[in-house]
Amino acid sequence: MKISLLSIGNELLSGKTLNTNSRWISKKLSSIGCVIQNHITVQDNKDSIVSGLSFCLNKDPDFLILTGGLGPTDDDITREVLFDYFQTESIFDDEYWLLLKEKYRRAGLKISKSNKNQALIPKVGEILPNSIGSARGLKFIKNNTTVFALPGVPAEMKNMVSRSIVPQISKDIEKPIFSRNIRTIGITESHIFDTVKNFTNTNSNLIGYYPSIYGVDIYISNDDRKEINILADYIYKNLGDYIYSEDETDMEEIIINKAIEQKKTLSIAESCTGGLIGDRITNVSQCSKAFKGGVVVYSNFSKINILGVDSNRIAKFGAVSKEIAIQMAENVKIKFDTSYGLSVTGIAGPTGGTKEKPVGLVYIGLASTKNTIVEKYNFGNYRESNKIKTSQAALNMIRKDLFNE
Amino acid sequence: MKISLLSIGNELLSGKTLNTNSRWISKKLSSIGCVIQNHITVQDNKDSIVSGLSFCLNKDPDFLILTGGLGPTDDDITREVLFDYFQTESIFDDEYWLLLKEKYRRAGLKISKSNKNQALIPKVGEILPNSIGSARGLKFIKNNTTVFALPGVPAEMKNMVSRSIVPQISKDIEKPIFSRNIRTIGITESHIFDTVKNFTNTNSNLIGYYPSIYGVDIYISNDDRKEINILADYIYKNLGDYIYSEDETDMEEIIINKAIEQKKTLSIAESCTGGLIGDRITNVSQCSKAFKGGVVVYSNFSKINILGVDSNRIAKFGAVSKEIAIQMAENVKIKFDTSYGLSVTGIAGPTGGTKEKPVGLVYIGLASTKNTIVEKYNFGNYRESNKIKTSQAALNMIRKDLFNE
Repeated sequence: MKISLLSIGNELLSGKTLNTNSRWISKKLSSIGCVIQNHITVQDNKDSIVSGLSFCLNKDPDFLILTGGLGPTDDDITREVLFDYFQTESIFDDEYWLLLKEKYRRAGLKISKSNKNQALIPKVGEILPNSIGSARGLKFIKNNTTVFALPGVPAEMKNMVSRSIVPQISKDIEKPIFSRNIRTIGITESHIFDTVKNFTNTNSNLIGYYPSIYGVDIYISNDDRKEINILADYIYKNLGDYIYSEDETDMEEIIINKAIEQKKTLSIAESCTGGLIGDRITNVSQCSKAFKGGVVVYSNFSKINILGVDSNRIAKFGAVSKEIAIQMAENVKIKFDTSYGLSVTGIAGPTGGTKEKPVGLVYIGLASTKNTIVEKYNFGNYRESNKIKTSQAALNMIRKDLFNE
Repeated sequence: MKISLLSIGNELLSGKTLNTNSRWISKKLSSIGCVIQNHITVQDNKDSIVSGLSFCLNKDPDFLILTGGLGPTDDDITREVLFDYFQTESIFDDEYWLLLKEKYRRAGLKISKSNKNQALIPKVGEILPNSIGSARGLKFIKNNTTVFALPGVPAEMKNMVSRSIVPQISKDIEKPIFSRNIRTIGITESHIFDTVKNFTNTNSNLIGYYPSIYGVDIYISNDDRKEINILADYIYKNLGDYIYSEDETDMEEIIINKAIEQKKTLSIAESCTGGLIGDRITNVSQCSKAFKGGVVVYSNFSKINILGVDSNRIAKFGAVSKEIAIQMAENVKIKFDTSYGLSVTGIAGPTGGTKEKPVGLVYIGLASTKNTIVEKYNFGNYRESNKIKTSQAALNMIRKDLFNE
């Protein structure tokens, strides 16, 4: 089932408003097996709307969903443009106008004459009910395409998609599409690609590689669930060490749930990440069952006085060193009396680097009941991405320990 | 200056990824006086990209900015399609390939053969540097349109737009649009609107109200800078207490810069925010001059043992109380030997609330050299927004103290 989306509104184009509608509709319809051909956003004027409509309809989608421009003010011209484009006259819906007036009266609002537009209906075409707002939707047929026009207000749009559009599309879908999203860390997109490329038993899977600052997601879709699972098994067999979760589950959730299950507890000593790891962990509901807290030791003074790091050792090795990462991890573990002590010390940048210890250098320590390990990274000199990559690598060290038991 | 945006990627169309790039570019370019004609997102295949390119170029924009599909895998076909569309041969850039190999080596990563695509450059066209990632940008000229192609990774795209594209567009703008974005906290959108409405001396300003989780921004634009400033003066006179910054400057930046200027230092004791406040503060470069660190005391054990909170007091008043917020702020100030001690204790939710202490209840304490103050809030039961609102209110307490001296 091919879908095309058209958003109308200058506020989307100027960047004032983030277009979450297109994403929401896409996610909703992809999940039932539709393929979204394109998103397009155009200005609130007739020419732009018409050229957007033509672009979408030229691709012959099964459904075209328009959002925006059905309100009562004078920049809301979608209705008029559509009546014109689909060459239908409009009729004034007296009954709806009475209903609308009553609705406003009950809400203690004065209705404006400009709301009268919202009672106009097409002679050829249908109306979609809107149980939340005053702008009803419209439905037209053009060649093989069913065109829906919906208000841009997210709550109203969502309600109408769920109630009126999804049921109609679902009915028409012959072959639903299934998918799995496998999340990796510590391996590059090109490396994954090279590995997966070698798997040629099946070619019918559609595979997407989605790198982000948190790692690379491998998204596999197919109308045959078995095919997906065969490829996924191959990926697990060859890249299993790099896989941390599936679907949209984040690293912190994986860790907290596993730690709770194993009755393990965790504390953190953060330097360059400044609290980000604690922040991520405490986004997980129920985290207090495993997470006991931490320290943000952003100065040598605090490393020494709060965490008990040895000042001579700092003088000898520097605060950003393997030795200090070890001591931070071990000391925080003892202080908070937890199963794990995680530590991070690094140079977040953009300044503060030296030739031997460049910006981006990070040591991550993990003290557990059996030993203390350290990993060394360099995540480059962009401060915020450096922090995020460090947090992800640090959480991954705990994950590996938790899952290798 | 007319701009057209083309995003390439199935992950955007399937709803897997929210298209924040188009919005970011739009905001950036609108603010310097550009008009964005359209956003369009197409699939990772040649026909779709070509039809997207043609649609955009038909509108004769001054600049067309493409994002996505410049990675190393076989779904990254933008480069190849563009070479073909603009009828140019490709050349292998040996020098860049060496650089890329060295970059991977330093990061401890193995480079893959598929990265070789990223060293291809057009015979007719230019290259835009990418100081963060491996995918460089491309630049072509077609009739009156300058076409830029950038990687879709947001950090890389932003860096390249700011460094390479904005300077070029700015240079070409004849009638620039000026703007000021005034950022408020602690006041509702309708309240601001009612106040600003009373100011009728000028009607030529375009005013937008943009509420977010961090507060409400008032965005004023005009081609006459004087008009903007007259309105801004009025807003400062009437709403000055609620204004924390201008443009896109965040609260944490305001605070850190002011604290450095005043030679004040800061430490934080976080409970329900879990490290978020420290994370935000440490996103500011040079923050170590003012921020000395903090503790994340996520359990009573750690409140007592790490921070020295009185266990009897916890038993008497509960960990989420005015009394504990005060002691946390005062103790962290002493432990880190700073001018300010900031504390947060609350119930982040979604569980853990009681009738007297519902989910969302938060106490924020601020100990300074002169006194300790506490504020009480309830930010509702959605965990992540609760944390963000708490962090913003907490930072605002320091701001008020720093700026009222």
